Amino acid sequence: MHIKKQRLLTPGPTPLYPPALHAMMASDIHHRTEDFRKVYLACLAGMKEVMGTANDVLIFSASGTGAMDASVSNLFSKGDKAIVCVAGKFGERWADIAKAYGLDATVITVPYGQVVSPRQVEEALAKEPATKGVFVQASESSTGAAHDLRAMGQAVAKTGAIFVVDAITGLGTMPIDIDGWGIDVLVSGSQKAFMIPPGLAFMAIGPKAWKFADTATLPHYYFNLKKEKKSGDGGESSWTASISLILALGEALKYVQQIGMANLVENAQMLAKATRAAVQAMGLELFAPSSPGAAVTSVRPPAGMDSGVIVKEFRSRFGAVIANGQGSMKGELFRIAHIGYFDFPDLFAMLACLEIILNANGFPVKYGTGVAAAQEVYASAAVKPKSTAAA
Amino acid sequence: MHIKKQRLLTPGPTPLYPPALHAMMASDIHHRTEDFRKVYLACLAGMKEVMGTANDVLIFSASGTGAMDASVSNLFSKGDKAIVCVAGKFGERWADIAKAYGLDATVITVPYGQVVSPRQVEEALAKEPATKGVFVQASESSTGAAHDLRAMGQAVAKTGAIFVVDAITGLGTMPIDIDGWGIDVLVSGSQKAFMIPPGLAFMAIGPKAWKFADTATLPHYYFNLKKEKKSGDGGESSWTASISLILALGEALKYVQQIGMANLVENAQMLAKATRAAVQAMGLELFAPSSPGAAVTSVRPPAGMDSGVIVKEFRSRFGAVIANGQGSMKGELFRIAHIGYFDFPDLFAMLACLEIILNANGFPVKYGTGVAAAQEVYASAAVKPKSTAAA
Repeated sequence: MHIKKQRLLTPGPTPLYPPALHAMMASDIHHRTEDFRKVYLACLAGMKEVMGTANDVLIFSASGTGAMDASVSNLFSKGDKAIVCVAGKFGERWADIAKAYGLDATVITVPYGQVVSPRQVEEALAKEPATKGVFVQASESSTGAAHDLRAMGQAVAKTGAIFVVDAITGLGTMPIDIDGWGIDVLVSGSQKAFMIPPGLAFMAIGPKAWKFADTATLPHYYFNLKKEKKSGDGGESSWTASISLILALGEALKYVQQIGMANLVENAQMLAKATRAAVQAMGLELFAPSSPGAAVTSVRPPAGMDSGVIVKEFRSRFGAVIANGQGSMKGELFRIAHIGYFDFPDLFAMLACLEIILNANGFPVKYGTGVAAAQEVYASAAVKPKSTAAA
Repeated sequence: MHIKKQRLLTPGPTPLYPPALHAMMASDIHHRTEDFRKVYLACLAGMKEVMGTANDVLIFSASGTGAMDASVSNLFSKGDKAIVCVAGKFGERWADIAKAYGLDATVITVPYGQVVSPRQVEEALAKEPATKGVFVQASESSTGAAHDLRAMGQAVAKTGAIFVVDAITGLGTMPIDIDGWGIDVLVSGSQKAFMIPPGLAFMAIGPKAWKFADTATLPHYYFNLKKEKKSGDGGESSWTASISLILALGEALKYVQQIGMANLVENAQMLAKATRAAVQAMGLELFAPSSPGAAVTSVRPPAGMDSGVIVKEFRSRFGAVIANGQGSMKGELFRIAHIGYFDFPDLFAMLACLEIILNANGFPVKYGTGVAAAQEVYASAAVKPKSTAAA
């Protein structure tokens, strides 16, 4: 056995920003004190700023799925008509939540690797004018595809429905104009672009959605949007706050604000572009070639090779954890993540490791081929040394 | 600005082993308690095991230079004859310490990048039979060269002198048989192969050296080998212990013992071999080609380029801190470290970054060239996935 560093290279949990991790050590404060309220208010304000929205922002002690649940249980009533876009495992989660709460959902399903088109949403809305909600993923991270939120949002805005977007892996990896594109509810999570451990969910909620909260009749208790808004205005969480994660978030937000959200998005997009170039140079195929997102790049293994072999050898040879396909996609793809705290050296290392693994398993790749393609993207993107401050 | 992870890639401080860092958070214990004594004794026993010696092992709250100082102030008297091997900045430090304490030192100096030969030591010993001590670096990390300790030790063992080795960067990067090669005093430090922050120095001291302690007359107080030995036997340090670092050391030693010291050495040697192949494939020259060590590889920049440009761009482009040349070697070399917590993905990333920096500064290197040479070394070393346990 030699040195094998544990490298968390999955699309969530994502690599942790060390100063945020260290900030968790100051957790010996009480959540109903002025000290904590200051941090909590800064987190709410910071989230609002990086989300670039005038809408209200809420924080929950929950995983992202908790905020997805909350958006249904707080804003809809049993039997409400809904349109659910399903392009992968996370789309299926929206469908499951809609079913669990008894919504009358029209599910638009496309094959894994493809996306639901704005036109499909428009047609479904025209067919059912009473639709109350349209649910979609910004980035469907089980396949690596990204939806066209802008066009979908414009279609939904013309109707009485609200547009509910799971941007858990989309936020920070693609441009999202919450207010400009009519996104009434946007959901995200701490363990993605925010570089901290799982356990916090975020929601941006606008005026059209708030009106839904007044008439919705589905039962709920822990996830209570109105109560959470009121508590947040006072610098507190409704229930006991996840103190350590709020401290981590405060630190991570400072970093994201320092980088700038647009640059964080560009960072992911450049890494995704370099990854696509690299794996294609190695002779591999993308799983979602027509509308690839920048949260994660899904790659098909060589013909006849199970992607699990690649995932396992990343771990056993190099101590690196990368993601396999989920559900029925297991074995058919592996995923290279770019969301949050990833940089080019991470990618160069990962690609060099991938070349070794492919060669060792009977798929010949000239060493350095994929790395060189990524280096070219770095160089042609004119990534210049602007500052000597590393972070 | 995009994501630039802070990467500490210098030959000391070296990259930190995260569980050791986290262990420092348990520092709220007192150093004169049974709880602490248990950890301290485990550290002493662990150091003895990984050093592979029957000699006594001491720990000091000091940098490695403190233990170098202690070896002179505790074991010698003013005017004692000594031979000091100087092959770089750290050899010069031995000479400075010998001078500070008034030893009558014969200094054998070789040009930077070369090493003092065992024959030179033998001749100096023959010329001055009253010599009491021979001082040398195992690895001269200012140039990247490594000395032949085995042959030197055999020469010294035949005389009345003791062999005092600074293995601060040598321990864990080259095979060292303390007892078999007659190394009477060996010095090392925490921030090297032991993967924890600076602040602890280690010393292995044998019977021949202990006898010197009985007659030595140089003044000393903080560094008191006999007192430290007695304290250590009781599970304590003579003075207040560096509690956080001892806790970190305890955790790091578990990891080093799990890997095995021989594998840790092989890890560094494989990385050094791959680095030499890579930089030569890029068209660069080694600074110490004839006797390269595995703690660090010193590389000459392309003709006409200051190595400081490379060091600065590693920081500004990629957030990585690498080492320039020291003293008069500044600008003439840059150093790629392999000591301690480094693995192949680290090296692949660093080499890809180096190729980009060289190209951006007018020295054309085909992208992927150096990376491919390192990948070849990895593959031909038959580094197989033996275990799925990452650490």
